[in-house]
Amino acid sequence: MDSGVTLAFDVMGGDAGPEEVVRGAAALTLEKSDVSVVLVGDGAAIDASLGKVRHQAERISVHHAPDWVRPGEKPGPALEERPSASILVAAKLVAGGEAHALVSAGNTGAGVLACARHFQLLPGVRRAALAAVYPTHRLHGEKQDPFSLILDVGATVGVTAEDLVGFAVMGSAYSRIISRNPSPRVALLSNGTEPQKGPPEVVAAHQLLRALPGIQFVGNVEGVDIPRGTADVVVCDGFVGNVSLKMLEGISETVMELARYAYKEKVLWRAGLAMLSSGIKRLKDLTDWEQYGGAPVLGFDRLFIKAHGRSRAHAISNAGKVAARAVRHDLAGVIQAGLKA
Amino acid sequence: MDSGVTLAFDVMGGDAGPEEVVRGAAALTLEKSDVSVVLVGDGAAIDASLGKVRHQAERISVHHAPDWVRPGEKPGPALEERPSASILVAAKLVAGGEAHALVSAGNTGAGVLACARHFQLLPGVRRAALAAVYPTHRLHGEKQDPFSLILDVGATVGVTAEDLVGFAVMGSAYSRIISRNPSPRVALLSNGTEPQKGPPEVVAAHQLLRALPGIQFVGNVEGVDIPRGTADVVVCDGFVGNVSLKMLEGISETVMELARYAYKEKVLWRAGLAMLSSGIKRLKDLTDWEQYGGAPVLGFDRLFIKAHGRSRAHAISNAGKVAARAVRHDLAGVIQAGLKA
Repeated sequence: MDSGVTLAFDVMGGDAGPEEVVRGAAALTLEKSDVSVVLVGDGAAIDASLGKVRHQAERISVHHAPDWVRPGEKPGPALEERPSASILVAAKLVAGGEAHALVSAGNTGAGVLACARHFQLLPGVRRAALAAVYPTHRLHGEKQDPFSLILDVGATVGVTAEDLVGFAVMGSAYSRIISRNPSPRVALLSNGTEPQKGPPEVVAAHQLLRALPGIQFVGNVEGVDIPRGTADVVVCDGFVGNVSLKMLEGISETVMELARYAYKEKVLWRAGLAMLSSGIKRLKDLTDWEQYGGAPVLGFDRLFIKAHGRSRAHAISNAGKVAARAVRHDLAGVIQAGLKA
Repeated sequence: MDSGVTLAFDVMGGDAGPEEVVRGAAALTLEKSDVSVVLVGDGAAIDASLGKVRHQAERISVHHAPDWVRPGEKPGPALEERPSASILVAAKLVAGGEAHALVSAGNTGAGVLACARHFQLLPGVRRAALAAVYPTHRLHGEKQDPFSLILDVGATVGVTAEDLVGFAVMGSAYSRIISRNPSPRVALLSNGTEPQKGPPEVVAAHQLLRALPGIQFVGNVEGVDIPRGTADVVVCDGFVGNVSLKMLEGISETVMELARYAYKEKVLWRAGLAMLSSGIKRLKDLTDWEQYGGAPVLGFDRLFIKAHGRSRAHAISNAGKVAARAVRHDLAGVIQAGLKA
């Protein structure tokens, strides 16, 4: 690899098929002159897709992988059965230094598991976290992002106070680099703002975070603060984070149905709802967190960006830009420095 | 007590002052000929309030309590300092058999603590739960309620599988009696619908609930299912429940702000939002779960209904009706029978 950034794209497993991933990666090579891509998946399908789009051929290579994991499959058995699955092959390429970071729109669990098998946890990190970007009322950072970060939203259960501190450091580093937020406000999710509120690991993490330099810890936040965007980074265990994120995803759908239920008799309200209907559709996309740059898996020596399964070329290209920016700014190094403190 | 129902109202601590609680209780004596009330709090204030409203004097008694717990106070120290606080006096009256159930619009923590001190846990119940009613898309039960029940939403942490099973039994009994839902759909909140998803206590509770007769257990639900109303009763530990409920409370506020942010440039959308604005205000009330009959504390031999701090007379009266119905239908007995199974 030269001084540029090389990204490995798992082109299989997205809902829109390999062509959208190839198109997104191809567009990235045209737009970013320092980014090279390795396309991992069915070689014939990749070549056919490349033949249809403009791209910088000298910064694209193709790595054939004969197999892949389907969206609904159980990750563990699927990876056992198919050692040549594209996500495993791509993770191995990144681990071996042939690319700096991994992007996939495929099966989330398989992606996380492939990283766990081939990447190394950073020193001081006991477990990696799946982070998610979600829209908020308040704007954040230099870019005035209407997004906050929440982690972990994965399937991890039984976190320790130290795990939560690790999530805080990782989330803060990611927010600094990706949202260009020089001093992200980091909060612990709890059932009250008082330091003694919450399960023992949350209470202990609160004390540790108060004493930690290099992090702007703003204390505990409550459920209502998540959509408000009170904090730039919300830290919690994967179970609570997953439940919360899925509630956010359901917000617009439910509020609008509720509005219809409550006000069906009112003509003026009905007219208002009708006028809003196309807006509501976009609002649904806005609350669909995975659309925005993808969900990073943090804590490994290499970065994995999980793009939404429904990603089209533009979203794939965005996920690649986020990954490239994280590599250029040495996200792993920033996290390590934060953990040492 | 005769064959009717007697309710103890803690008249102190609501945001609107003792007068609203007295008015609500007074209205109840006019509307329900089998309900008597004991008004607990500042005797002079109660008498002054009663002097201003119609009421059935023969079914109202006043029990003076010289002290009370303020809304924002820490419950433990407040109750230590003030053994004659109205909530403690009222709980003692109920425990002593002078009333069947307790209603309060005051400090939630103080109410739960007062019950814990004076009421008995039902046999087989290791811990009580604070349940909450919240609005959903789907309608429930014979009354076609647009509400589901979620419990625990209190401050309990570290539940066991058996605690979760207890919550399921208690929530199912409450839904049968209060929502007149003959066979409530009971679900466990988890990070996936598969039985093996979630923390160990959730996985174990799933197996126990599958084998439990008398409950319609529909398996695990995810965060997105809470606002959808997929289940009539959602069971979880108090930490996750509290975070989820507070997110629901913030829903309407945030969605509308998001809509403004996303579509501020579109005149048509703005017009639609303007038309909806009064509706949005009502929607906020609709998502304010504590307004609807109050939040029951379940698991004790006596029922405590926590009405919202902002309750006006009408809401207090509704909370009283819910409490009276629970007493008439022997909620505690139904829960006990369910726990034996």
